[in-house]
Amino acid sequence: MTKKIYLNDLAGLIDKNMAGYISDTDEYPPVIYDAMRYSLFAGGKRVRPILTLLSAKICGLKYIDVMPAACAMEMIHTYSLIHDDLPAMDDDDLRRGKPTSHKKFGEAVAILAGDALLTKAFETALLCGKNKKIKPASVIAAVSEMADGAGVKGMIGGQVVDITSEGKKISNKTLSYLHRCKTGALIRASVVMGALLSGADSKQVSLFRSFGEKIGLAFQIVDDVLDVTSSAGKMGKNTQKDSNAFKATYPGHYGLEASKKAADKLVVEAVEILGKINGDTSGLKEIALYFTKRDH
Amino acid sequence: MTKKIYLNDLAGLIDKNMAGYISDTDEYPPVIYDAMRYSLFAGGKRVRPILTLLSAKICGLKYIDVMPAACAMEMIHTYSLIHDDLPAMDDDDLRRGKPTSHKKFGEAVAILAGDALLTKAFETALLCGKNKKIKPASVIAAVSEMADGAGVKGMIGGQVVDITSEGKKISNKTLSYLHRCKTGALIRASVVMGALLSGADSKQVSLFRSFGEKIGLAFQIVDDVLDVTSSAGKMGKNTQKDSNAFKATYPGHYGLEASKKAADKLVVEAVEILGKINGDTSGLKEIALYFTKRDH
Repeated sequence: MTKKIYLNDLAGLIDKNMAGYISDTDEYPPVIYDAMRYSLFAGGKRVRPILTLLSAKICGLKYIDVMPAACAMEMIHTYSLIHDDLPAMDDDDLRRGKPTSHKKFGEAVAILAGDALLTKAFETALLCGKNKKIKPASVIAAVSEMADGAGVKGMIGGQVVDITSEGKKISNKTLSYLHRCKTGALIRASVVMGALLSGADSKQVSLFRSFGEKIGLAFQIVDDVLDVTSSAGKMGKNTQKDSNAFKATYPGHYGLEASKKAADKLVVEAVEILGKINGDTSGLKEIALYFTKRDH
Repeated sequence: MTKKIYLNDLAGLIDKNMAGYISDTDEYPPVIYDAMRYSLFAGGKRVRPILTLLSAKICGLKYIDVMPAACAMEMIHTYSLIHDDLPAMDDDDLRRGKPTSHKKFGEAVAILAGDALLTKAFETALLCGKNKKIKPASVIAAVSEMADGAGVKGMIGGQVVDITSEGKKISNKTLSYLHRCKTGALIRASVVMGALLSGADSKQVSLFRSFGEKIGLAFQIVDDVLDVTSSAGKMGKNTQKDSNAFKATYPGHYGLEASKKAADKLVVEAVEILGKINGDTSGLKEIALYFTKRDH
């Protein structure tokens, strides 16, 4: 079985479990469930939950043990896409080749679907507290990490800088903050949560953290590069939008080649960190390499 | 010291602590912190956090022990107001006598400020995990209750029905769902969280739950009544907006007098439940009575 099939299997496992977490016996009002599912099952690659599963397994837990927390990360990622696409934000009509949430359900329901997914993410992650193999204190640490990655010190902070920097000349420092936070913080949290839920010691956790920070930043740089080089068909959304909107991007700031090199360097450093972690880190290595090789 | 001064003192204590939870050593980007504080400190009555403090004290904890969870409820309430006021939702320009968040900061920052407060609420509530007097499992139970009250089975569900029912004739059952969920679920959760954090047994918790459900529903009915009878000056927002928009309200459905009577009846029943709870429940009784007596 090749790695690619293996990661696809994990994505399938995640989808199956996530469908269960979203389902309620009495789904009322139906439109909010429809809207949550519409965006959640729109063909995401499940990168974040896979990272949580892999890091937890390295630290001694089974995939299924941390499934609620893993799926919670995908819910947070999805809510952020729904809100980012809103007319008041990036005003996108197309996401993963389908109409965006507000195009399909209207703005009010799209805003509420995002809110609902964010809230459901916390509810779902806390289900790890029902697993006797995971200490309640570890659940609290992991869900706190999730909030940190998703909040003003992480993803939301990055998004605010992104929105308020449009059309402005920004410093290298601001660009670095933006990239570290906007996408990187949630990817870092996905990796770290797996270790925290497993009760890994602080030294191990900080290795996972460094690894997550590096691949998170690489992921965002590659996203910016693909926005310039890829076609709308492959990306499933309108490309060259960021550069057209004079958004603060790595290629716009440092050029295309330097950006690609920066991403490659980060991944090499990330893989080096994996060498210091006990256990089979080949899955994480595979994902790290995929981050710079992907074409969509 | 009269009860009113006593409740004002609690509100002051909440404000002081909440300011601390929102502050970060490095507040970047500043606009998101400004926007969070702008709405959070706009003169709210702090009803929800006071409920958490009071129920926790009845069950044996000190106010300060559950302060993070109490303040989290106010953050969730505030985020919901910011998002409800957005042009795509209720399109309100005025809230508590001040321009709404999107009028002050623009729509993008308002959406993100709401998202940030919701995320910060979970981060803050989880700080109770650092308190040795509270079991980690109790923190998980309490924060799960918070997510339940705020999510699709609670506040968000109610808001979706509210938005999608505008101008339509709805059934008694739908109206009851709307009122139970839109405001009631978060008020119920505020009460229940105090008991859960204290490690109260399930029988006690269910008494707090019934009390919270009844006063939560009463609060929403009185809100609808005040929308018809009060002036914009007292309410600090545009009144008669709900009736003008053909929103599904109690007075619109059952008439003004029947609505007032329904709220009074619920409060009487809530006070009866307090009689079954051990400890000094006079603070909760005071709040329950205030719910029907308030004029704004």
